[in-house]
Parts: sequence; C-alpha cells; structure tokens
Amino acid sequence: MLEDIKKIADKITETVKNDDYGKNIRPDYLREAMFDYPTRGGKRLRPALFYWCFNMCGGIDRPGLEKCAAALEIWHNWTLVHDDIIDGDIMRRNAPTTHIALAETAKSAFEENIQPEKYGKDMALLCGDLQQGWAIDILIRGGIEANLDPGLILQMVRRMELRANTELISGEALDVELAVKDLDDIEVCEIMHMIDLKTGALFRCACELGAMAATGYSKGREFEKISDFALYLGRGFQMQDDVLGTFGEAAKLGKDIGSDLRERKPTVLLLKTLEMGDDISVEIIRSLIGRNDLSEADIAAARNAMQRSGAYDFVKAEVNHCFEGALDALSHFPMNSGRKNLEKLVEYLYSREK
Amino acid sequence: MLEDIKKIADKITETVKNDDYGKNIRPDYLREAMFDYPTRGGKRLRPALFYWCFNMCGGIDRPGLEKCAAALEIWHNWTLVHDDIIDGDIMRRNAPTTHIALAETAKSAFEENIQPEKYGKDMALLCGDLQQGWAIDILIRGGIEANLDPGLILQMVRRMELRANTELISGEALDVELAVKDLDDIEVCEIMHMIDLKTGALFRCACELGAMAATGYSKGREFEKISDFALYLGRGFQMQDDVLGTFGEAAKLGKDIGSDLRERKPTVLLLKTLEMGDDISVEIIRSLIGRNDLSEADIAAARNAMQRSGAYDFVKAEVNHCFEGALDALSHFPMNSGRKNLEKLVEYLYSREK
Repeated sequence: MLEDIKKIADKITETVKNDDYGKNIRPDYLREAMFDYPTRGGKRLRPALFYWCFNMCGGIDRPGLEKCAAALEIWHNWTLVHDDIIDGDIMRRNAPTTHIALAETAKSAFEENIQPEKYGKDMALLCGDLQQGWAIDILIRGGIEANLDPGLILQMVRRMELRANTELISGEALDVELAVKDLDDIEVCEIMHMIDLKTGALFRCACELGAMAATGYSKGREFEKISDFALYLGRGFQMQDDVLGTFGEAAKLGKDIGSDLRERKPTVLLLKTLEMGDDISVEIIRSLIGRNDLSEADIAAARNAMQRSGAYDFVKAEVNHCFEGALDALSHFPMNSGRKNLEKLVEYLYSREK
Repeated sequence: MLEDIKKIADKITETVKNDDYGKNIRPDYLREAMFDYPTRGGKRLRPALFYWCFNMCGGIDRPGLEKCAAALEIWHNWTLVHDDIIDGDIMRRNAPTTHIALAETAKSAFEENIQPEKYGKDMALLCGDLQQGWAIDILIRGGIEANLDPGLILQMVRRMELRANTELISGEALDVELAVKDLDDIEVCEIMHMIDLKTGALFRCACELGAMAATGYSKGREFEKISDFALYLGRGFQMQDDVLGTFGEAAKLGKDIGSDLRERKPTVLLLKTLEMGDDISVEIIRSLIGRNDLSEADIAAARNAMQRSGAYDFVKAEVNHCFEGALDALSHFPMNSGRKNLEKLVEYLYSREK
C-alpha cells in the first residue's frame, strides 16, 4: 500500500519541482517559499485519490495527469499556508511554517525598519495567494496536455472552485468560529459539518476530478457514489485523527499528544465526553481544557474519562461506520486496480497510527 | 466620458450583486463580506478597459461578457482586501475595510474568548481567498454564456493567472519590500517596475482579455499594441496618483494630502526630489518623512522642495510621456467607438483631480 502511494508522491514532488509557473515571481525568496510546502512530502492523499478514482472509472494514465494531480496537492498546501498564519503555528512536517521561514529571511535581509514576524506573515499571505493561482493554472495545463476536452477542463476548474474554494474555505471559517464559541454551545453536528467542508470537500474534489477526467461526466449514479466515498473517507480520516491526537503515540504521530485539549479544540470526542460523561469525568476534562502544562498523568486521566464516558467507543464506532460507508460506496464499481488501491487506502487509514 | 463609465459601473454592480457564486458560503457574515468591496463602487476602470478593448478589436456586446468584466473587478477587490490587512488600513471608499468590518461583527456576535482584531483579519484573509476563486469562476461562466470557444476561455483563465496572479502579487510583494528598504538604496527603476506589476499587470490583463474575447487571439502586432497601451496607462495612472497625493486637494481626492510622506512611501516623486534637489530641499524632505504631525505649512514646504528640485516637472513629464504613449498605441487601431472611449479615458485620467 505505502509503496503504491510513494510512487505517486515521488511523481508529484518531481512535477511540482520542475513546474515553471513561478519563474517570473519576485522577490526570489517569495518564489522559493511557494515551492516549499508542496515539495515537503506528506501523505499525498489527494493526488492518490485523484489517480485511483480515475483508474477505477476506467481511465488509463497518460502524460499531463500528474499535473492535474499536483494541482490538488498545491491547493491543499496553500490552504495550509494561510491556516498556519491564522493558527500561529510555527512548525509543519518537522520544519518551520512558511510565515516563520519568511520572517527568518527578513531578519537576515533587512536590518532596520522591520518587524520580522509581521513581514513573514505578510509575505506568507501573498505566498498562499500565489499558490491558489498556481493550482488552477497547472490543472488547466495538465488537462490540455492529457488531451482532455477543453469544455471538460472548464468544468473541472469550476468543480475545484466549488469544492476547494467555497466549501473548503467555509470549513476553515467555521473552524475559526468554533474556536471562539463556548464549548457548551456547540453541537456535534456542527463539527461534523465543519469536517465535511474542511477535509471532506477537497477529498471529494480529488475523487470527482479523477472521475471526470476518466469519463467526461459529472453526473449519474456512479458519480454520486464517488462523492459518497470521498465524504465518508474524509469524515473517517478526520475523526480518526482526533482520536490519535489524544490516544496515539507521540513518537509515531510526530506531534504532541494532548495538543487538542491544550488548544481547546472542539472535537467530536471532546464534546461527546462532556455530553455522555458522569460528573467526575466531565469535571476532569473541564479542569484540563486549555491548560498549557498537561502532564503524562493528566493525559492519562483525560483518556480514562473519554473511555469511561463511552465517548471513545462512540467515536470509534463512528469512524468504523465511515470507513464501512466508504467501502460500500466502492462496491458499486467493477473490481479493478483503481478500486483495489482505494480499498487498500481505506484499510490503511483505518488502521493507521500516525 | 464619466457617463459612459457609469453605465459600465452600474452593470458590474448589478452583475456582482445577483451572482450566486457564494450562496453556500458559511458563516453568513463571511458571505456578505465577500460582496462588500465589489459592490462599493469605485472607478470600475478594469471592466471599462475590458469592454472598450473588446469593442476596439471588433467585438459586439452580448450577454455573458458582463460576467467576464466583473471578474476583473472582483480580482482587483480581493487584492485590496489582502492589501488592507497588510497595510493595516481602516478605511476604503469612505467605509471600514473588510477586516475592520469583520472585527466589528465579531465583537457583537461573540462575547468571550475573542480578540476581535485578529478575528477580523483571519476572516478577511479567507474572504479574499474566496474572492480569488469567485473571479475565476465568474470569468468561466461569462465566457461560456457569451459562447466563447472553450479553448479560448481556458487561455483567458491562464492569462488571468499570469498577469493578475503572478505579476500583480509580485508587485504587491515588491511594494511590501520597498517599504522596509532604506530610501537611499532604492532606484527609480525599481519603483517603475513595481508599478508595472502592481497596477499595470491587471490593466494589461483587462485589455488583453477584451482583445482575446473579440478576436480569439493572444498574439500578433495588434495584441502587442493593446499590451503597450495598458502598460503606459498603468504607469501614467499610478504616477499621476502619486502627484495628486501631495499636490491634490483633499476635498476632491477624498483622502489626506501628504499621507505618502507620512507613511514614508517611496514614490518616484519623492526619490527624484532626494536625487535632484539642492541641500536645503533634501533636508526639508528628510525632516518631514515619516512624521505623523504634518501641518499645512509642512506640506507646502514639501511641495516647494519638490518643485524647486525639478522632481515635480520630471514626474509630470513622465506622466505626460506615458499618456502620450498610451494614445500612440491606440493610433494603430481603426477609429471606432471602442477606441474613442479609450482615448477619452486617457484624457480623463490625465486631467483628473481625484
């Protein structure tokens, strides 16, 4: 499984590195920043979803498609650049975030008149703006190179703007809004909706573009099944992520355990614990939320409260339901290499520990 | 002249208001913010350039083109939304900037856990991101509605990403960079280059898209003349703007006179004064740069130094040269209503006082 994804990942990195979209961009450090996240690695789930849905729908790989797949990864990455500014995050994939890296550049390039943190954020904002345009441009170039019908390419761009612009950014905005709401005022269904938008929409876009490139259509029962698959996968993936955030192992995950609690992040797991837990569980969780000094024992206590309340089982069942739903959607397609890879992907994400 | 532009302006406002791109965007206040700048008015120069270049190249108006024209205005406006965050500006066209308006929304919607200024900026960042996608989507829809060839529409989108994404944003970034450089380290040619990118690129995009929609081509001598026209116009427009910023009348201009000096903005006018002025002129200017308490007398002294140094005449001659260049480029086209309107536009911008 990981081997198959690695092939795609390498192709995407290569495609991004050699793309000349940014050749006239100035200043040089801004152009280089544009290439940073998209060549840093990561799971490359979205390009894989694009390729395998394309294969499942009968498409045969040809030059140009790697650019369409890369468009999804570039889109994903510009949203991360802006997200990191909003969240004030300083590290991503074991390296400084774009705005932090650009602040460092500024410190060494300019001696006076400068607030490096602000300068880094301003440039990172523009960097994300550039990457959004890059994603659309490379999608079009890829489609033309792969000999897709121009009318179809236009529909693919429009699908990108629908899913990856309006829906994904609405998800971002709801996430920002949820963070300032009182936890007691948030419904679980609001979080599910936010997940469908923030994570599900781009998964859906990746799968739908793959199907469109293969069949030329964006309608019909099969197309709907593709969308269902992606939505279930996105939900399952994100809720699994939230569980790992408290129950995973730091070494495998590559990030702190308990950061969701520390950052007061409203997850389904947290909300369900507050809703289902007995008085003691609820009190323990409330005493730990938002604290910067969580010890190993605190996290163990939080885990215990989440399990005793039944919230952990509830979320695990929900994750299970989502991945089952994803597999069920795939069962409507004839068995082929695309479907096989997607099934393996579901299993991999279901059993992942990082 | 103004009457002709007003007709276009009204059509654009109507088009933007009734467009349903954002109908699924959440939260509601974010969706509303998206429509704010593009319906606030302004000169609507870019849609006018699109229409008149379209006419000059033999195009006859038909439904759908108003959406292509609106795409240019929406693009312009998202760059303003992000620009206002970067510059920390609080007013635009006599109303609060997007990030300030969204901070006010947050204050009244959420009582606790909130830093309204940061919240307003985060949401405004997402608002601009949404508007970038909107511009591309409405351009495509307009092109399809106007029955343009799908392959041509793809080329128009790519032209937009070239001019309005890579070039314009490079101009923005250079502007941010110039603001932290020592004035003595900045060359006049750097400012000209920044103007060509920050202002000229979108003018060029508007004119080129109009020509492409009319002729189906983006090559050849006529197309190059269209590009020349736009570049000259952008330069003349921006340098005229800089002159008005110090020599205009506040009442007509709708903004403070002398703000460029106060904000230490490196304009050609300022740099040329430092370069050409005698010791006294230079000393006067240096003593006023960056000061928050400029009096009427200070501004009069600055004007005097700029005139005595010869910098004022230099810039006026340059503005003159640019507008002449724009008219010369137009002279390569047969006389028709499009060319006539463009010529009137050049004259209007040349003699404008606001």
